[in-house]
Amino acid sequence: MAETLSLHPDRLFSSDPIQRDIAGRLYAKIKDLPIVSPHGHTDPSWFADNENFSNATELLVQPDHYLLRMLFSFGIPLQALGFKNRDLTKGDTGIPVETDPKVIWRTFASHYYLFQGTPTNIWLDYVFVNVFGMKEVLCAENADTYYETITAALQTPSFKPQALFERFNIEVIATTEGALDDLRHHKKIKQSDWNGRVITAFRPDNVTDPEFEGFEENLIKLAEVTNINIDTFAGYLASLQNRRYYFKEMGATSTDHGHATARTLDLSDDEKEALYQTIRSTNFSAEDADRFRAQMLTEMAAMSIEDGLVMQIHPGVYRNHNQSLFEQFGRDKGADIPVATEYVNNLRPLLNKYGSHPKFKVIVFTLDETNYTRELAPLAGHYPALKLGPAWWFHDSPEGMRRYRQQVTETAGFYNTVGFNDDTRAFLSIPARHDVARRMDCAFLAELVSDHRLSEKQAEKIAYDLTYSLAKDAYDL
Amino acid sequence: MAETLSLHPDRLFSSDPIQRDIAGRLYAKIKDLPIVSPHGHTDPSWFADNENFSNATELLVQPDHYLLRMLFSFGIPLQALGFKNRDLTKGDTGIPVETDPKVIWRTFASHYYLFQGTPTNIWLDYVFVNVFGMKEVLCAENADTYYETITAALQTPSFKPQALFERFNIEVIATTEGALDDLRHHKKIKQSDWNGRVITAFRPDNVTDPEFEGFEENLIKLAEVTNINIDTFAGYLASLQNRRYYFKEMGATSTDHGHATARTLDLSDDEKEALYQTIRSTNFSAEDADRFRAQMLTEMAAMSIEDGLVMQIHPGVYRNHNQSLFEQFGRDKGADIPVATEYVNNLRPLLNKYGSHPKFKVIVFTLDETNYTRELAPLAGHYPALKLGPAWWFHDSPEGMRRYRQQVTETAGFYNTVGFNDDTRAFLSIPARHDVARRMDCAFLAELVSDHRLSEKQAEKIAYDLTYSLAKDAYDL
Amino acid sequence: MAETLSLHPDRLFSSDPIQRDIAGRLYAKIKDLPIVSPHGHTDPSWFADNENFSNATELLVQPDHYLLRMLFSFGIPLQALGFKNRDLTKGDTGIPVETDPKVIWRTFASHYYLFQGTPTNIWLDYVFVNVFGMKEVLCAENADTYYETITAALQTPSFKPQALFERFNIEVIATTEGALDDLRHHKKIKQSDWNGRVITAFRPDNVTDPEFEGFEENLIKLAEVTNINIDTFAGYLASLQNRRYYFKEMGATSTDHGHATARTLDLSDDEKEALYQTIRSTNFSAEDADRFRAQMLTEMAAMSIEDGLVMQIHPGVYRNHNQSLFEQFGRDKGADIPVATEYVNNLRPLLNKYGSHPKFKVIVFTLDETNYTRELAPLAGHYPALKLGPAWWFHDSPEGMRRYRQQVTETAGFYNTVGFNDDTRAFLSIPARHDVARRMDCAFLAELVSDHRLSEKQAEKIAYDLTYSLAKDAYDL
Repeated sequence: MAETLSLHPDRLFSSDPIQRDIAGRLYAKIKDLPIVSPHGHTDPSWFADNENFSNATELLVQPDHYLLRMLFSFGIPLQALGFKNRDLTKGDTGIPVETDPKVIWRTFASHYYLFQGTPTNIWLDYVFVNVFGMKEVLCAENADTYYETITAALQTPSFKPQALFERFNIEVIATTEGALDDLRHHKKIKQSDWNGRVITAFRPDNVTDPEFEGFEENLIKLAEVTNINIDTFAGYLASLQNRRYYFKEMGATSTDHGHATARTLDLSDDEKEALYQTIRSTNFSAEDADRFRAQMLTEMAAMSIEDGLVMQIHPGVYRNHNQSLFEQFGRDKGADIPVATEYVNNLRPLLNKYGSHPKFKVIVFTLDETNYTRELAPLAGHYPALKLGPAWWFHDSPEGMRRYRQQVTETAGFYNTVGFNDDTRAFLSIPARHDVARRMDCAFLAELVSDHRLSEKQAEKIAYDLTYSLAKDAYDL
Repeated sequence: MAETLSLHPDRLFSSDPIQRDIAGRLYAKIKDLPIVSPHGHTDPSWFADNENFSNATELLVQPDHYLLRMLFSFGIPLQALGFKNRDLTKGDTGIPVETDPKVIWRTFASHYYLFQGTPTNIWLDYVFVNVFGMKEVLCAENADTYYETITAALQTPSFKPQALFERFNIEVIATTEGALDDLRHHKKIKQSDWNGRVITAFRPDNVTDPEFEGFEENLIKLAEVTNINIDTFAGYLASLQNRRYYFKEMGATSTDHGHATARTLDLSDDEKEALYQTIRSTNFSAEDADRFRAQMLTEMAAMSIEDGLVMQIHPGVYRNHNQSLFEQFGRDKGADIPVATEYVNNLRPLLNKYGSHPKFKVIVFTLDETNYTRELAPLAGHYPALKLGPAWWFHDSPEGMRRYRQQVTETAGFYNTVGFNDDTRAFLSIPARHDVARRMDCAFLAELVSDHRLSEKQAEKIAYDLTYSLAKDAYDL
Repeated sequence: MAETLSLHPDRLFSSDPIQRDIAGRLYAKIKDLPIVSPHGHTDPSWFADNENFSNATELLVQPDHYLLRMLFSFGIPLQALGFKNRDLTKGDTGIPVETDPKVIWRTFASHYYLFQGTPTNIWLDYVFVNVFGMKEVLCAENADTYYETITAALQTPSFKPQALFERFNIEVIATTEGALDDLRHHKKIKQSDWNGRVITAFRPDNVTDPEFEGFEENLIKLAEVTNINIDTFAGYLASLQNRRYYFKEMGATSTDHGHATARTLDLSDDEKEALYQTIRSTNFSAEDADRFRAQMLTEMAAMSIEDGLVMQIHPGVYRNHNQSLFEQFGRDKGADIPVATEYVNNLRPLLNKYGSHPKFKVIVFTLDETNYTRELAPLAGHYPALKLGPAWWFHDSPEGMRRYRQQVTETAGFYNTVGFNDDTRAFLSIPARHDVARRMDCAFLAELVSDHRLSEKQAEKIAYDLTYSLAKDAYDL
């Protein structure tokens, strides 16, 4: 028989009664604050078109790379989760592609126990209880009931994207779009009667990373879209600035850069022009490409000072580590793996140039936790422009968030951090993720209060800032 | 006066009453499960010959590199612990070699306080109380009593290896033998009336690592033993496959590979043959040797798919760091030091080739804890073939195990891990080590239950799996 | 209104009543032990001249790089804290230099909330309460009262350096001086009637690091001061040995070496002479300089065996990361950033040569916490000469100290560590820093007692040793 499912009001707080009570009091004061989501990957067309979501599987299973990776790690092929091989000439294993969403849901349900102890379990249970009113832990036996209940609910008006946005108490949410995106959905939202604030963020990797798929064609489109000649580096920069202004018009307050490393450079004008021409010749080395990306971070910083967009750097991932999976199924299927990342030498050119500039803001993230105490907290605790992004991706979890606060706070304080990012395309999980962050921050503060490192009054103010003000300030929202 | 020695029933559980009680309940359900020991270094001749052990010093002090290293670090020369310099022409310090085991025991006893706070203390106190019924903390004053009590007990029938094996409730234990071992002890055990399950594991470093002492002669023996011509790479591989089948016949279910790094390669057939010939010429560079080791991991993976032996990789140790100690006293004297280890790039060739193969299983270990969250949990949470070995060597300790679960679980879950390995040649400490692992797992689960991340019922099932099923499944036992 | 300020007697102890009570009992037994401060940066002239300190700002704000860095990170220019640009031709921002110490204090006070959760907050609150009797948390509103109260107190006899030294119950304090220092203040203290023990430590980086500012002139001075011809490497070494003996005469028991890495070398005599001549030619590469530093660590070790000075190595910092800040304001303004550091390969030449020598002692520190379990605890747990320095600089904080004990103890034990270093030039904060260390050690021991890894009697002895004996022994005090 399935276990009863419920959300304990004290979940994620210490079982020590002193800490638990302090955490509970802190949490009570901030739990109902609106959600500020300055960085994420929801689809703006949801909010623009406001169509009902289709079914449980398409909404909750297939777009969530946390789910895909864990299921795949237990030998469930992506075909069994409804994904079609894109190239049957290579590595076709003859595995049939499952097309019935209910069957896929059953596969997921019968493996739900694999997620015990992971944040996925916490997020989904929150969604199951709070959004869909489920009362049993998901398992093979109740898979169909679950599927039908959720899918039926999704057909109703109160489960349309805009209704959920309001129900979730979202004050503002940022999506992320490539530099060439026409932002038609954001435009539509802006022109509509709906008052929800959905903004974009400028993600130019596809036109700044020479090794990005289709880079050369992307540059041609960039020139077309902006109607700027990009034969020179200056022209290329002008066209990027042009796009940034367009994104800003559509509400963007930030840019985002996802390079393999945090390398930056500060070349002379001649060097930059020569490097750009090498890159444009398409006859460039891996080191050329790397230097170009490095220089482009510094150029983007210069533009941030000009146009006021806050810069975000998300480095340190080996994308698409599983080559044949990538060839068959493409990106974002759960095969991205963090790598050791270096910041002190790599960021120095950029920070020496702009790190003390009063108009510059750069938010740096890491998947290599060894940098929290060694590099990032010390850097953030010195450079005025640099703030530390929250525990990211694999680390936006109870233990990950705890380590983040324990390792960052003593050197950088609370006020060199920027609040929480949900960074997700799993729309329904957004309140769950913010709830975990709020609880873990309160639990951390409760420990500092319980051993007299902070007064409870100080902790109250900090909890409010971590939940609300810091994100608003850091991202100029 | 010596302190009273006793083992508290709640040891290693949180002092928080809520967590302590949950941990106690979980532990009560699994504490008596049989010991599954899929990876270790006990001597198979003990079980084959079933002779009494000699004395306290020879059994408990001299083979334990944890003891040797700590005593050495306080200036006690190995000679004082009974070790003879093997080459008196080099670095002979004129220190006399102690030959009286009782005197050596006294030296150990009077320095036993050095181990406070280390797992050695926990393991040995467990042995002293549970195996020998001691009632005082070991110190200089009671050293002789200790020595005599233990040595006397060891002469009795109930302290013979087979009797202890049964008393320890060991369901199966794996030893580790080099590729050229004739496995006579395992054969003898198999052919005997005794029903204890003692299996071997295939450790081929001495014939796959060109820099292993005696590598070239080892290859000649390999050819002789298998009666296979190894002039070509194909012949060499065939002879290794031959040995693997022999080990499998003698009960092996796994192989083990202890390289300095986790590097793997996937060369073409021509490249492999050429590299092999270079290695055989004995005129090879360090890089050649490294590439050969890297390629051999991939070859071993291919053979695992063929013969079903589970692969284990234990990388990242600088062996014999203290050169003169090595020259005088040889390997395994406590001078092996972990080094920073990289997995994401290094394992990619192997994982891209076989990481998604349904018949392949590889268990990866680390001594570089920075990889838990950054590299290993993400890799294990994606590749079907890859499971994560438990906290290893310097880390099979309360704090080490806690960090392992805290850092691995959120990304890889519980079910991409493989239960506990005692990995020891200290036979008497095996129950103590498993007990520490069981207690720490229960303590970790109790924290998750206490803050409502798991229900107690879920935790019970997981505790059982961590203690018993995962090791049985992962190692095909 | 300002919050009430008080120091809770149980601060930094766990809120769990069992652990808190054990910690309290342990702490009660060691809290009044005299302060042994074997490594730090106080100014010996304070104790030699025994003049009153000037005012709150000059004593508490301006010399403290923890304060400067955090304030700078929130956009407060150093000019606003009273620092004059040294070169107005470069990067002069026209920011006026504040000269009124009270105005600077106000700036600090109104940003004091930034330090919440950092050790600075703990140290300063301790000083405010215990040294100056303040009763409110520092903030903008009470800034002037604070300034006036502190500044007035500083004018009185009981706040003179020698009086504070006695009031702080300091048994011995070591300062740090460059190799060319004439140690006049130490001489004066020695010759005075005052009995306070203020000793020096030999810091030769300015004459052993070819990339140190003014290296070549420093060598010329070295030759002059020692009256030794340094044209050969042997002469250079003799002059260094000469300085070491002078420092030893003035009370030094240790040397200190602050290189960018932990690299050591063991070159032949010819190689050393050739390298020295290259360095003296001033026409050397970065690699030459690095090799010279590496060799000099080994030479210093040899001299330590000769003269008995304990060696300290503090590697792994990128000094003066912010180039323009350095050009304008010089060293030690809060822009030093830790970098990843390697010990196993780097220290091997030195450790292989002297690591087992009975007369050698070397204390190694790190700012890269990943080395605690991976490299440093294993090395300290093997080599007799090597002991582990305490949690250092960015890590001499509650969480930093906790991680240190949790990660070091299981492999190296307590007795391969050396007690606490305050390592500060902030004289008033010394008792606060030692108090934090004592409390965190007691809290850590209390956890081990509470889960039955140690008896309370064992913990009492260890607490005493961590607080007092280990530092005395390790530094031969």
